[in-house]
Formats: sequence, C-alpha cells, structure tokens
Amino acid sequence: MSVLSKINGKIILQFLGILLIIEGLFMFTGIPISLYYCGNKCFSLLYSGLITSGTGGILYLLTRKAERNIGKREGYIIVTVAWLVISLFGTLPYLISNTIPNFTNAFFETISGFTTTGASILVDVESVPKGLLFWRSLTHWIGGMGIIVLSVAILPILGIGGMQLFVAEMPGTGITPDKLHPRITQTAKRLWLIYVILTVIEIILLLLGGMNLFDSLCHSFATMATGGFSTQNTSIAGYSPYIQYIIALFMIMAGTNFTLHYLGLHGKIREVWKNEEYRYYILFTFGFVVLITIFMILFSDIAAEKAFRDSLFQVVSIVTTTGFVTSDYLLWPGNLWIFIFLLMFIGGSAGSTAGGIKIARQILLLKNSALEFKRMIHPKAVIPVRFNGRAVPRDIIHMIMAFFLFYILIFFAGTFIMSLLGLDFDTAIGVTIASLGTIGPGIGSVGPIDNYSALPNVAKWLSAFLMLLGRLELFTVIILFSPSFWKK
Amino acid sequence: MSVLSKINGKIILQFLGILLIIEGLFMFTGIPISLYYCGNKCFSLLYSGLITSGTGGILYLLTRKAERNIGKREGYIIVTVAWLVISLFGTLPYLISNTIPNFTNAFFETISGFTTTGASILVDVESVPKGLLFWRSLTHWIGGMGIIVLSVAILPILGIGGMQLFVAEMPGTGITPDKLHPRITQTAKRLWLIYVILTVIEIILLLLGGMNLFDSLCHSFATMATGGFSTQNTSIAGYSPYIQYIIALFMIMAGTNFTLHYLGLHGKIREVWKNEEYRYYILFTFGFVVLITIFMILFSDIAAEKAFRDSLFQVVSIVTTTGFVTSDYLLWPGNLWIFIFLLMFIGGSAGSTAGGIKIARQILLLKNSALEFKRMIHPKAVIPVRFNGRAVPRDIIHMIMAFFLFYILIFFAGTFIMSLLGLDFDTAIGVTIASLGTIGPGIGSVGPIDNYSALPNVAKWLSAFLMLLGRLELFTVIILFSPSFWKK
Repeated sequence: MSVLSKINGKIILQFLGILLIIEGLFMFTGIPISLYYCGNKCFSLLYSGLITSGTGGILYLLTRKAERNIGKREGYIIVTVAWLVISLFGTLPYLISNTIPNFTNAFFETISGFTTTGASILVDVESVPKGLLFWRSLTHWIGGMGIIVLSVAILPILGIGGMQLFVAEMPGTGITPDKLHPRITQTAKRLWLIYVILTVIEIILLLLGGMNLFDSLCHSFATMATGGFSTQNTSIAGYSPYIQYIIALFMIMAGTNFTLHYLGLHGKIREVWKNEEYRYYILFTFGFVVLITIFMILFSDIAAEKAFRDSLFQVVSIVTTTGFVTSDYLLWPGNLWIFIFLLMFIGGSAGSTAGGIKIARQILLLKNSALEFKRMIHPKAVIPVRFNGRAVPRDIIHMIMAFFLFYILIFFAGTFIMSLLGLDFDTAIGVTIASLGTIGPGIGSVGPIDNYSALPNVAKWLSAFLMLLGRLELFTVIILFSPSFWKK
Repeated sequence: MSVLSKINGKIILQFLGILLIIEGLFMFTGIPISLYYCGNKCFSLLYSGLITSGTGGILYLLTRKAERNIGKREGYIIVTVAWLVISLFGTLPYLISNTIPNFTNAFFETISGFTTTGASILVDVESVPKGLLFWRSLTHWIGGMGIIVLSVAILPILGIGGMQLFVAEMPGTGITPDKLHPRITQTAKRLWLIYVILTVIEIILLLLGGMNLFDSLCHSFATMATGGFSTQNTSIAGYSPYIQYIIALFMIMAGTNFTLHYLGLHGKIREVWKNEEYRYYILFTFGFVVLITIFMILFSDIAAEKAFRDSLFQVVSIVTTTGFVTSDYLLWPGNLWIFIFLLMFIGGSAGSTAGGIKIARQILLLKNSALEFKRMIHPKAVIPVRFNGRAVPRDIIHMIMAFFLFYILIFFAGTFIMSLLGLDFDTAIGVTIASLGTIGPGIGSVGPIDNYSALPNVAKWLSAFLMLLGRLELFTVIILFSPSFWKK
C-alpha cells in the first residue's frame, strides 16, 4: 500500500509551490541593491528569483486541483520539507554569482539563514557583493516570519513540546489550540505586522545612529529574526555604543513572545508583566548581565560602562540565540566565558523568533522538579504545576520533559559524532550547541570571532541538520523518521 | 511546633549508634596489618576504632528505649546522615595518624571512599602506611555493602527514581516494594554473602596472578565496591595483563544488579539474560570496547591485544563508575577520550554498587522517547513503555525523567560553580561529573593520572557533596532541603 495514498501529497506540493513563488519574489527585492552597488554579479538574484518563482508557479499549477484536506501528518511534512526546499532554492544566488561556489557551503549558509542561526562559512563578509549580503540577511528575516507563524499557530495545533500552553493566550484573536485553524491567516497577519513595524523602527533608530541604510536593513533583519548574520567582519563590535544598545534592545524584543507585543501594543502592559515567562526572561537575563558586569569590573580594568555594555550585549545575544558579537567572550577574564556557554542551553521565549529550549520550558521543568519532593512525601496527592496561574496538565509536563531529554540526548550524540569527525572537544561541543540552539557563535574554534569554514564537509551537513532540528522544535523533524508516522 | 516531635529522632540516633559500632569494628580489622607493617603510626586504627565504637555504644545505650516505628521520613534522614556520620568518624585514622592532617582533605578522602567514588587527594599513595591504605580501601567495601542494601531494599520502599522497578524481581525472597520490609535483613544477608564470595574469589584470583595479599585485599575491596582507590601510584597500570583482565571481569560483575548474581548462583542463567538492563549493559559496554579498540588500532601503533585490553579496562572502569586506570585515556589517539567522557554519563546497573544515572534508566528514557512520537500521532491511545516484558506505570516514567533532569541540572550547576571557583572548563566539567557519577578520575586536571589535591578547599567540599548526591540517587539527599519534608 503506497504511503502517498494516505498522505495528501498534492496539497504539500501546492504549499511548497506557493512558498517558492514567495521566496522568488523576496529574491527580487534585492535587485535594486544589486543594481545600486552593481558589480559583474549583478543578475544572480534576478536569475535565482526567476528559477525559484518559476518552479513554484509550475508546482502550483500542477497541483491546483488538490483536495483541501490538511491533516496533522501533512502539517509535519510541510514544515520540515518547506525549510529544506526554501534552503535548497535559497542557495541559487550564492551559486549563480559564484560567491559561494561550493554547494555544501552555500547550503550551510542558506539554512543557517532560514533557521535564523547565523553561523557562517564566509571568511571575509565584506568582500561579498552587497546584493548577496542583502539576500543573506533576508533569509534570516524570512525565516523569522516563518517561525512566528510556526510557533504561535502551527506547533500548538500539532501539539509539539508544550507549545499549546505557551502561546494559547492572545485575547481577541481566539487563539486556542482548537479554534486556531480557521483564524490562522488572521493571526499570522497581525503578528507579521508587529514584526514588520519593529523591524522598521529598528532600521530608523540605526539610521539615526549613523549606520548606512544598507547595513541598517541587514542588521535589522538579522536582529528581529534573532539570526546574527552581520555585514561586517567584526559583527557589531565596530559600531558606536548607541548602536550596540539599540541592537541589544531589539534582540530582547525579538526574543519576547510576539503575542505579548500584541498585548503591549493594545495597552495591556500589566498583562504582559503578569506573563511568567516574560518576567523570568527579563529578570534572568539582567541577573546574568549584572553578575558578569561585576566580575568583569573586578577581574579586569575594563571601564564600567563598557563592561556593562559588553556583558549586556553578549548575554542578550546568546539568550535570544541571535549570535551578534561586540566582544570576544572567550577572551573575557577568569572563566567568564563558561557563563556564556551555559546560557547557550537556555533559549529565548516561546512564540518569539528565538531558538533553544526556551525559558517557559525551563520554568516548567524547574517548577515540576521542585514539586517532585512534595509528590514523594504525599504520593497519593495530585500536585499540579502552575503556570501563569493555571494548573498545567500532566501530559504537557511529560511532553516538555521529553523535549528536554531529546535536546540533551541530541546534544550528546552531536558532540560525539562531531568528535568522531575529528573536531576537538570544545569545538565539538560548540558547533553542536550553537547549531542546535540556532545561536551561531559557539566555543572552541567556532567562537565569536571565528566562522564555520574550516569544518569538514560532513560536520557542516550535521551542523545544518542540527539547526533544522533545533529550529523546528525537534519533534517536528524527528517524527518523520518514526515508522509509525508512515503507517496508517 | 518542634520538628522532632513529629520525627522519631531517637530511632535515628540508635541506628547511627549501631552503624558507628560496626564502623569501629571494621577499623579494628586493619590493626593486624598495621602491626605487621608497623611504623610509628601503628595505633591510629586502634584509637579510631575505640572512639568510633565507643561513641556508637553510648549513642545506642542512650536510645535503647526508642520507639520502633520507622517511617519514610526517618528512612530518608537515616540514609543521608549515616553516610555523613560514618564519613566524619572515618577521618579519624587519617587525622590521628597525621597521614592526612588537613580535615578537608581527610573528609574528602573518606567520603570518596564510602561513596565508592575513588577520587583521592593523596599525591603519593605508596608512602601512606599500609594500615591506613587498608582502611582507605575498606571504606569502599563498607560503602558498597551499604549501597547494595540501599538500592535493593531501602530505595524501592522510599520510591526513589524508579528503583522499585529495577530491583523488584528476586524470586523466592518476596522482594516487592510492599512486602520487602519484614524481610530486609534476610535480603541484605543473601546479597552480602554474594558480595563477600565475589570479593574472596577475586582476592584468590589476584593472588594467583602474583599480587601480594595486601594489594589483593585492597584492590578486591575497591573493585567489588566499584570504588577505584588503588595502593599504587599508577593504579592498575603496573600490573600484568592477567591481573588487568581479572579486575576488568570483576568490575563488570560489581556493576551488575546483585539480584541477578543471586539468580545466576541458583542456576537461572536464562533468566539473567532475559533481564533487559543486563543485556544492554553487556552489549553496550562491549560495543564501545570494540569501537575504541578499532580506532586505537587504526590511529596508533598500539598492538591489538593491548589496544583491546586498555579499551576494555577503561570502558568498564568508567561505565561501572569504578575509576581504576591502566592507561591515560586523555592521551589516546584522536579524540577518543571524548568517548570515555561521554560514558561518564551512563552509569552501571541498578542494584549494583555502581553509581551514575544507571543503564535501566537510560533504557527507559530512550524507549519512552521513541514512544513519544507514537503518542503524538495517536494522542488518545495509551501507549506504555515496556521493560522486562511488563508495562511500566506512567508515574515511574515520570520519576525517572525527573531523576534525569535533576542529574543534568546538578551537572550544569556544579560545572558553573566549579568555574566560579576558578577551575578551567575541562576540569570543572571533569570534577563535577566524576564526583556526581562517583567515578573518580575525570577530565582536565583531574584526569586518570591526576588527583584532586590541587583543588581549592571549597571545590573539594562541593565535590564531596556531589559524591553524596550521586551516590544516594539525588532525591534521598535533596528531599531533606525541601520545606515540605519538615512540615507535618
């Protein structure tokens, strides 16, 4: 019995067709920039856009008459395959322009963009034609748009890793796991509007700080997507303190649950602060900033403001899984970099563009752990975890624990395989967590001032796979490898 | 309201009294050795034994009339306090003889013994008087006896981390969590008999290999307890291949569930092999041995037999959390030591003297993880994990997940604090996992040929605390810090 007789393959292809049309159109937006800064690689975005949209158009036409029924299984397939296919077509500008002639590298750079990771194989970013740098930053921004819809609308329906719990509260839009489906378009539009508005505000604020339009666009795309690609070889280190503070501020906002921005824009500030994940996110981040600042001042002769700024920027950059750099944390006094390393296991807020395990999951795991003792002492009592004032069903706690276990398991397995591929200990750990957490810079030879170009090809593919896994909240991808998924 | 009005403090003190009497008697067993090899530190074991047994005797006399009711809470307190108190009195021989004049070091060495960790602050073991080396190895052996009773009889009653599941099958002794209590003495006697028999057989086999009686005794104590203290500065590296193979074999047996030895001795070999944990323990260990052997042969010019022997010995030594050393794995070709490092997170079998997370828990976590996908696809179906052919209750899976989460959390927190104390990254990780897993040798500056003497005092205390945590399966200790434990 054929698998496709059960799964609605046509509608999946139709979706991919639509996505490719959109991706191609996005490629066209870089053409003015290519023309303005034109070198002889002027037309690669045009050609790529035509190929991509053209392929999408053909796919759409062929599947026009697909049945409209989309089940969970189609959902899972679409999500993973979409990220892969847009990454595949996203390599075209690099390949056609010969900027990144090697396919492995081009695919790595593209999926690193679309997963909003920001790990790069480019050694000299500043030598890359501007049109292609624009496309590179745009892959972040497109990826971020995808993630917002995914985490707020799609994953809660699919029931992935407790997502239904974290983003179930957006009053006025009727977002509850059951009723979301008919309003998915409406939700997406509202959140995208916020995403666009925040991006535009950041662009303006960066322009006001003296950054040119091109760099402002690219950095704003990368910030709001918590991506981390920069147009400068030194990332954000060469910019003024004003610009560093602005970017830090917008990283914090990009790492915030977007439904809270929606509430905030509607004046419900008190409700925002009532959100447990948001409170812990802010307090935890600033706690670490203060701690690291104090250590830096005590153990080095860095001026207080710079110590604060560097620690603020790097802590925020890592917690939000962005990966911008203003200071090489591996060179910080004492063992302060180990703090940054441990922060790589936290992750931003659920429903934001940030990757990683996510603050909400960490809170629930810690709360549940604390309650284990109560349960041991009173084995017959039902003692639920409370989150945002409500009792959390046991099944969701179980799911979140399973998510965490998978994350740690994949981290260990990734480190193991990376070591087998010849990477040293720190680098194996660094590549694995920086990819899985969609952060970008790690530790070892993939530290904040390094890049991924020297990795063996197999390690690059594994790193790319880890980005995809981490970005799509693990289960979405792994479930496709489960035999029971493909059975009736 | 006083806490002690609720908790039966007298019976706790009585237990401690009995334990101290026994500990003192054990100290006396070293006196013949002290006399034989007598230096001027001849009488420290005698004095220590008198003080210890004497204190125990007084405690017992004072609490003779205690009520006999022992609840779960008394159980928790006794377990943790017992390990602390015998470690405290266990320092006496070191302190009185002035072999380890510093109290921190003496306590570290003693609790490292009783928790069967085997981490040492002694730089030159061979210069230590033989009587004290005997006591040092004996702390392992006593600790191992405690652990067998704890894991097979006490923890299942207390309901710690799934223990009720792993050791619930010892036919003929009626060991089930409910009925165990009246037969606890009988069980302990049977398992101790096996423990003693295996120790004696190992002593004889080591003697046959040409090891002298003293070293045979000490190494057999350390092997059966999966401890790792040696009487030689080079651990087991200086001994013949025969002796290395014998010790490896007995480490494997010490890391096996002791109820399986009981079955095996009663001729039920097929039932032993039916035990899932045992099967995975053996297959997993040998899989890694073969893998590392192949790598060693490929990437170095070590002879095949030596490559096999070294990898067998070190893999077994780490998986069983013993910590004996025949080869400095940090110097192995390629990044092979990372394999050994990852093995530090596995642990031996439940119901053995080995520490760590334990194979049974790893199996259940992996099985449960695999089933998560089935559950996601069929959210309404009840899909239990099966272990040894039976469905495992959801609550036990939940507990095991909680155990794993705590383990990882404590590992991260430990690494973090160790870094704060000035340890470098590898050493911070190494000390934390080698202590928590009761292994002994770690990575970084606490590798297989190093010792713990250079650590700052605070790090030694933290390491000692981690040993206790890991040895007593986390919850037993942490629950004492939970406010709800002390409430009515």
